[in-house]
Amino acid sequence: MKDFAEPLTRLIHELGRLPGVGQRTAERLAYHLLNADTEDVLALAGAIRDIKTKLKPCRVCFNVTDGETCSICASPTRDQGRIAVVESVRDLVAIERSGAWNGVYHVLGGRVAPLEGRSLETSTFSKLLKRLEEDTEGRIREIVIATNPDAEGDTTALVLKEHLEGMGRKVTRLARGIPTGGSIEFANVDILKDAFEGRDPV
Amino acid sequence: MKDFAEPLTRLIHELGRLPGVGQRTAERLAYHLLNADTEDVLALAGAIRDIKTKLKPCRVCFNVTDGETCSICASPTRDQGRIAVVESVRDLVAIERSGAWNGVYHVLGGRVAPLEGRSLETSTFSKLLKRLEEDTEGRIREIVIATNPDAEGDTTALVLKEHLEGMGRKVTRLARGIPTGGSIEFANVDILKDAFEGRDPV
Repeated sequence: MKDFAEPLTRLIHELGRLPGVGQRTAERLAYHLLNADTEDVLALAGAIRDIKTKLKPCRVCFNVTDGETCSICASPTRDQGRIAVVESVRDLVAIERSGAWNGVYHVLGGRVAPLEGRSLETSTFSKLLKRLEEDTEGRIREIVIATNPDAEGDTTALVLKEHLEGMGRKVTRLARGIPTGGSIEFANVDILKDAFEGRDPV
Repeated sequence: MKDFAEPLTRLIHELGRLPGVGQRTAERLAYHLLNADTEDVLALAGAIRDIKTKLKPCRVCFNVTDGETCSICASPTRDQGRIAVVESVRDLVAIERSGAWNGVYHVLGGRVAPLEGRSLETSTFSKLLKRLEEDTEGRIREIVIATNPDAEGDTTALVLKEHLEGMGRKVTRLARGIPTGGSIEFANVDILKDAFEGRDPV
C-alpha cells in the first residue's frame, strides 16, 4: 500500500486486532467506514473512545460506571446485604437482564487459571475481603458465588469458598442442573451428575 | 440495560450497525474493548475518526488522499496518458497491489444500477468527461474500463463506452476469460463464452 492511504492502512491494521476480525473482514469494515456518513463514523469513534474515557470501575463492586459508585451499589431498592460474586461485567449484565437477582455484586475481573499463572491475587478478590471486613455491623448476610460452570469457574469458586468460609456469612453457589429448554437425552454426563447431586424434594 | 452503562450500550449499538456485525458480535467486541488496553482502544477510535477527518477524495481522480491530489496523480513515473476507470477505491487498491497497471485512475464511486435508481449521474463520471475536455493537448490517450465483471459492472461499462466513444481516445476494457489457476472443467457457461469470444492468436 502507498503512504497516501496511511489512515486507511492504519484503520485496517487496528480493526484487524479485534477478536474474530481477520484481514479480509478488517478491509471490508474499513471500506464500509470510508464510504459511510461522516456523522455515523464519528459516532462510532466517539463511542469507542468513551468506553475508556467515561467509564471506570465502581469503587465498591468494580462494575462499570460513569460516577464513583455504580447505580446498583447506590440503589436503595436493592438488597445490599447479598453479594453475587461474578467473573466479569458481562456476566453481571446478563444477570441484570434476567431480572433474577435483586442483591448487589462484586466483579472479580478475573478467574483462577493456574496454567495461565492467574490466581485470586490478580483479581479484585482482596477488595471483596475488605468489603466484608469493613462491614462491622454485619449488614452483608450472604455471598453467592456466581462464577461460570466450567473448569476455571469451578476452580475459582472452590478457592473463593475456602477463603470466605469462616467469615460468619452464608456462602452459596448458583444451582447446577439441566437447563430449562434442554433435554435429558442430549445432556452430557457432567450435566446429569449435577442434576442428580443437586436434586430437590418436590 | 441500566443507564449507568450508557457508554457501553451506545458502543454496542454503534458496533451493531457495521455490516456483518450482529447483536452478539457487537456485545463481544464491546466487552473486549472494555477490557483492552486504553492505548489500543484510543488508537482504534483515532483510526476510525481519521478516515473521515484526514482523508478526502483526490480532486483529479477521486482516489482517497490526505492532500489535494493523490500520490498516483502526482507521480512523474506513472503514465498520466492512460486512465483506468474503476468503480471504487477498493478496486483501485486491489489493482495497485497487483502491480499490473502503471497508468492513473478515475474512481467512479458508483455503478449504474437501474433497479436501485442509480445512473452515471450519481457517480463522478461528469468529472471524467471534464478531465477529457480540459485535456486540450491530447495527453490522455487511452481509457481502460475496469468495472467489475458482473451484471451491474457490465451495464456500467456499456454506458461508459457509449459516452466515451467519439471523444478521440482509445477506449478499451479489461480482458475476460478463464482465471489463472481456474479449470475449464469447473468454468461456467459465461466464463467459457468470454474465453472463446476473446480468444487470441498464439
